[in-house]
Amino acid sequence: MSDLNRRNFVGGVLASSAALLAAGRAAAAPKLPDIRREVERRHDEAVARLQEWIHQPSIAAENVGMDEGCALMMKLATDAGFQHVERMPTRGAPGVYATLDAGAKKTLGLYFMYDVKQVEPSEWASPPWEARLVDVPDLGTIVRGRGAVNQKGPQAAFLAALHAIRGAGHKPPVNLVLVADGEEEIGSPNFAEVVLAPAPRAALARSLGVLGPDASQARDGGVTMTLGSKGDIELDLIVSGEKWGRGPDHDLHSSYAARVDGPAWHLVQALYSLVTANGDPAIDGFFEHVRPLTGAEQAMLDVAAKRLDEATAKKVAGVKTWARDANWRQALEDSAARPTLTIEGLVGGYTGPGGKTILPHKLTAKLDLRLVPDMTPEDIVAKLKAHLAKRGFGDIEVVVNGGFNYTSTTASSSPLIQSQIGVYRGFGIDPMLWPRSGGSDPGSLFTGPPLSLALANFGLGYGTGAHAPDELFLVDSKNPKLHGMHDMVQSFVDYLYAIA
Amino acid sequence: MSDLNRRNFVGGVLASSAALLAAGRAAAAPKLPDIRREVERRHDEAVARLQEWIHQPSIAAENVGMDEGCALMMKLATDAGFQHVERMPTRGAPGVYATLDAGAKKTLGLYFMYDVKQVEPSEWASPPWEARLVDVPDLGTIVRGRGAVNQKGPQAAFLAALHAIRGAGHKPPVNLVLVADGEEEIGSPNFAEVVLAPAPRAALARSLGVLGPDASQARDGGVTMTLGSKGDIELDLIVSGEKWGRGPDHDLHSSYAARVDGPAWHLVQALYSLVTANGDPAIDGFFEHVRPLTGAEQAMLDVAAKRLDEATAKKVAGVKTWARDANWRQALEDSAARPTLTIEGLVGGYTGPGGKTILPHKLTAKLDLRLVPDMTPEDIVAKLKAHLAKRGFGDIEVVVNGGFNYTSTTASSSPLIQSQIGVYRGFGIDPMLWPRSGGSDPGSLFTGPPLSLALANFGLGYGTGAHAPDELFLVDSKNPKLHGMHDMVQSFVDYLYAIA
Repeated sequence: MSDLNRRNFVGGVLASSAALLAAGRAAAAPKLPDIRREVERRHDEAVARLQEWIHQPSIAAENVGMDEGCALMMKLATDAGFQHVERMPTRGAPGVYATLDAGAKKTLGLYFMYDVKQVEPSEWASPPWEARLVDVPDLGTIVRGRGAVNQKGPQAAFLAALHAIRGAGHKPPVNLVLVADGEEEIGSPNFAEVVLAPAPRAALARSLGVLGPDASQARDGGVTMTLGSKGDIELDLIVSGEKWGRGPDHDLHSSYAARVDGPAWHLVQALYSLVTANGDPAIDGFFEHVRPLTGAEQAMLDVAAKRLDEATAKKVAGVKTWARDANWRQALEDSAARPTLTIEGLVGGYTGPGGKTILPHKLTAKLDLRLVPDMTPEDIVAKLKAHLAKRGFGDIEVVVNGGFNYTSTTASSSPLIQSQIGVYRGFGIDPMLWPRSGGSDPGSLFTGPPLSLALANFGLGYGTGAHAPDELFLVDSKNPKLHGMHDMVQSFVDYLYAIA
Repeated sequence: MSDLNRRNFVGGVLASSAALLAAGRAAAAPKLPDIRREVERRHDEAVARLQEWIHQPSIAAENVGMDEGCALMMKLATDAGFQHVERMPTRGAPGVYATLDAGAKKTLGLYFMYDVKQVEPSEWASPPWEARLVDVPDLGTIVRGRGAVNQKGPQAAFLAALHAIRGAGHKPPVNLVLVADGEEEIGSPNFAEVVLAPAPRAALARSLGVLGPDASQARDGGVTMTLGSKGDIELDLIVSGEKWGRGPDHDLHSSYAARVDGPAWHLVQALYSLVTANGDPAIDGFFEHVRPLTGAEQAMLDVAAKRLDEATAKKVAGVKTWARDANWRQALEDSAARPTLTIEGLVGGYTGPGGKTILPHKLTAKLDLRLVPDMTPEDIVAKLKAHLAKRGFGDIEVVVNGGFNYTSTTASSSPLIQSQIGVYRGFGIDPMLWPRSGGSDPGSLFTGPPLSLALANFGLGYGTGAHAPDELFLVDSKNPKLHGMHDMVQSFVDYLYAIA
C-alpha cells in the first residue's frame, strides 16, 4: 500500500549522491541558538503531545470522533499560543479557524487537517491508536499509529516550534492564520465553508501564502518540492437495462442473451469510445484547455530527468516500459503535464470465483480523471456527458463521487519557496523542484480565486505508511540521511525566521 | 432468483386455454388400475421417502455429504428393486450405476443426480434440510427444502412408481439402467467416468434412450417438452500488466496513468473486438459450424409463437424490446438457434462504493458462450484465442471454468417422446414441443457419441425455486391445473407401460 501514499507521486528516488550539499549551512538568525536549546529541551514533551493526538481517532469516513478531534485541534492551537480559536461548523464535520497575532509585519497561513484514514487493526503490528514508540533498524525510534505522518506528526512538530519559540521567551516572527479541515480524507467536501468564511478569508488574504507541514524527506534523504498538483474527478459510469431501454431490468439467466441485449456490451462500447488505441483520453474536447508547461517548469523537468533514476522508478512502478514508449524525460513530463483517464475499477454481474450463468442488467465502471491547468471538473464532466450522448450512450449515468480542482503552481520565486530552499540547504539538502504532483488535494481553495495564494508543503523529516497499516513517523533518527522530529521542529523555526 | 431456474428457459408461458385438451384420456393399459390403487395407498410412504432424501445434504460445491449422499442414492435404488447397485468412484464425487432386470424386452436408461445446490439458511422460511410440509394458497401441500424439485422430488416419484408396480405384484414392464451424478451442480466434471465406464456404457447402449425425471408443469399447468439444449462455455478473460508487458505488475496510484499504460483499457479494447455494434458475437469463425434448424424445428417454433404470449414473456424477462428488435417468432428462433457471447461479470480494481484512486494491474471479464450444433467448446475456445492473438490481445489469459457440449435434439418421433406426449394427453395436457433449451446440462454424454441416445425429461407435476431459497415441490395439489406427487408417480407408471 505504501506506493499509494498520496504524498509520494514523483518519478523515482533522488540519486543520493546529489541529495546532499557539502556547503550551505551558513546563515542562522541571531535568535536561533536559544530556541534550538529549547527545541531540544522540549523534545519529549513534543513527542508526548503527538502521541496524545494519535490517541484520538477522528475518522470522517466513519463519522467517528469528529467532535472530539475538533476540540483537541482547538486545544492544541490554544496551547501553542493562538489567541483566537474558533470552531467552524460546516454541513459535515467542523473545521477550525485560529489566529496568532505576534505583532509582526508579515502573516503566514497554515493548513492543517485533524482527520485520519480508516484502520484495520488486525493488519497492524501494534494498535493504531496506541502511538507506540518502536526502534526500527536503519531508521531509529519511530512512533507507529494512524495519522503519525499524515499529518499529525508534521503538524505536531510545527506546534512544537511555536512552543519552543515561546519557551525561549520570544514571540513568533510572523503572525499566523490557521485553518484546519476535519474531512481531508474524504475529499474535503465542505472545507470551502471554512476557508472562505468572511473572517478566515480576510485573514488569509493578508498572508504571504499557506504552509502545510509535511515530512518531506524520501527514504534516501532527498527532498522534492512539489509546486502544484493536478485536479481530479472520480465518477461512476453506470449502465442499466432500465435506463438503456434495451436490456433487462433485472439479472437474467445467460441463456436469454440470444434474444435480450446485454447492458455489459453497451458499457464496453461506451468505454471503448473514451480512449484512443493507446489508451489516451479521446473525450471530445478533453485537451482544449490544457495549458502548456512554462519554460521554468520544463527546466525543472530537465533537472529531474538527470537527478531521478529511471531504473528505480520503473521498479517502483512495476513496469517495463512507460506509456507511449516515452523516454525518461518525456515520462516525467507526462507525469507532471498530461491529463488522464483511468479505469479505477470494473464491477457488475457475477464477480466471484468461477462462473455464474447470468446476463447482468447493471454494471459500473469507476473512472478517475486527472486534470491540469486550466481544465475544470465541471467542464470535463460536461464534455464527458456530451461525448457519450453524441455516440448513443446518453443513457449511461455519470455519477460524480468527488474531486478537486487543480492546485495552481506556486512560483519558485515566492518567498515561501525560496525560504524552504534556504532552510533545506542549511541542513545540507539540495531540494529538487517538481512542477506538479499527479495527486490531488484541496489546495485549490488557497491557490485558486478568490485567494490566489502561494501554497507550500514543507518540513524536514521522514515518515511512511499514510493510508496503510503501520503508518510511522521518525522521532529520533539513527540514519545519517534522515532527520528526526527535533530537526523537523528546528526546520519550522528556521522557516518562520527565514520568511519573516 | 426463480427466473434463473436452470430448467425454465422457454419463451413465455403457455396460453392456459390451449394447455388443456378436452379429449384424450383414453387408453389406459390393462394392468394400471391395481397399480393406481397402490400409488394412492403408498402416497404417504413416497412423501416420507422424499423427506428423508432431502434430510441428507450432498453439496458437491462444498464437498459436503457426498459419501452419505452416494450411499443413500444406492439404498434408494436397492429399495426400489434394482438388483445391481454399484458405487462408481471418479476423480471427484462418486456416481452410482444400477440395473433392474425385469426380464422385459426393452430397456430404459435413467439419469439421476443426488447432489444439490448450496443454501443460505437465513434466506429460507423453514430450514432447508427439514423438508417441511406446508400448505400454500392456490397450490396445496408442498414440501419445502433444498433439492425438493431439483431433482429429488421428481426422482423420488419415479422410484415410488417402481414401489407401486412391485406393491401391486408386478414387475416393471421395461428393464432399467440408472446412472446418477454427484456433481451435476458443479457442471458434471467427472460424470463421463460414470456413464462411459464399460458396464454402464454397454447397458445404456442397449436402451431405448434415457429419461430424466422432471416436474414439467409450468405455473399455469402447461408443459413444454424440450428436445435438446445448447452447449455452454464459461471462461474468464484475465488481463494483467505482467502478462501484457506494458502495464504495472501491481496496483498503482491512479496518478501514474500519465505515464503507465492501463491494463483495464487493454481489456476493454479486447472485449470490444468480440462483438458487433449490436452486441452479437464477432469472434472470427464463430458461426462457421452453426447448423440451421430443421423444418420440423421451425414448425415447432411456428406453434410456439402462437401458443406463447409475447407480452408475458417480455414482462418475465424485464425487457421492452428483443435483441435486434426481433419480432416474437424471430426472438423465439433466436432463443433456440442463436449461439451467444455474454459478459456474466466484470471485476477488477476498486469495486466498492465511491472511488479509490488506483490504476489496477489486473482485471477479469467473465464470459458465457452458448453453442448450438455443431459448435464444440474446444473449437470455440481455440477460435477465441486466435481472434485475440490476431488483434494484439494474445497476452490476455483465457481460463475456462467449465462447460457442456450441446445436447443433440431428440427426434420427436422417438418412442420416448411419443410416449410422453401420449401420457400428457392422457392427463388432458397438450404439450408444446421446443427444439432446444438455452440452458445446458450434461445430456451430451448420452446424446453425443459414442452412445448417441435419445434423451427426454419427463414427469407430470410442479415445483419451483431450484438454486434459490424456499425451493418447493408440490405434494398434494389443490390447484386444478397442477398435478401433485401421486399423479406424477402415476405418470411414470403410465410412461413405463407406454414405452414397453
